[in-house]
Amino acid sequence: MPLPDDLRQALRFDDQGLIPAIVQQQGTGEVLMFAWMDAEALDRTLETGEAHFWSRSRQELWHKGATSGHTQPVVDVRADCDADVLLVTVDVPPDGVACHTGERSCFHRTLDDLQESP
Amino acid sequence: MPLPDDLRQALRFDDQGLIPAIVQQQGTGEVLMFAWMDAEALDRTLETGEAHFWSRSRQELWHKGATSGHTQPVVDVRADCDADVLLVTVDVPPDGVACHTGERSCFHRTLDDLQESP
Repeated sequence: MPLPDDLRQALRFDDQGLIPAIVQQQGTGEVLMFAWMDAEALDRTLETGEAHFWSRSRQELWHKGATSGHTQPVVDVRADCDADVLLVTVDVPPDGVACHTGERSCFHRTLDDLQESP
Repeated sequence: MPLPDDLRQALRFDDQGLIPAIVQQQGTGEVLMFAWMDAEALDRTLETGEAHFWSRSRQELWHKGATSGHTQPVVDVRADCDADVLLVTVDVPPDGVACHTGERSCFHRTLDDLQESP
């Protein structure tokens, strides 16, 4: 089912048809990852209740966790005041992993870490 | 002081010289806003301890709260695994406001709200 027209029009996708999506764990508030959605990814997310994104590197629809098993059950999706960013609340298990490095969150490095080993 | 070269090189700014920044309240984990930084904004943030961004609409350095008074004291800045997104932890007072609408967080609308009044 395509994304409802009124929702598609209310959201401000960028000139590549994408919108940033912040993924946050319910309860703890931990920010797990950041990715991009196109209208289809958002539609699939709302339809299936599992987070889908647009992979800019692979240029394809990306069902998060489809291969790793670390799918992200979606609890809520909100938009910001300008309707050009999404906040996706998910509820992944305590041992769930969002990052391709095996860490729970993609945000596991301080800027000092980064300067030491980029 | 310009951003240290090693940090500037370790971070992946996009082709417009920008990097997304997620702003999160310390402790509660509430995501307050999402904005963009260029190297200068990040440098000013690290140098002053208050969040600075690049305003894409005004095309200028934006010291958050400089006019409203709702500045954002920065506690920590982290990078994601790809070094192309920043997570900025701030500590704003309980009555602090991040959104230009007067709401504490920019993410105060559900998708249902958006469909009802875009």
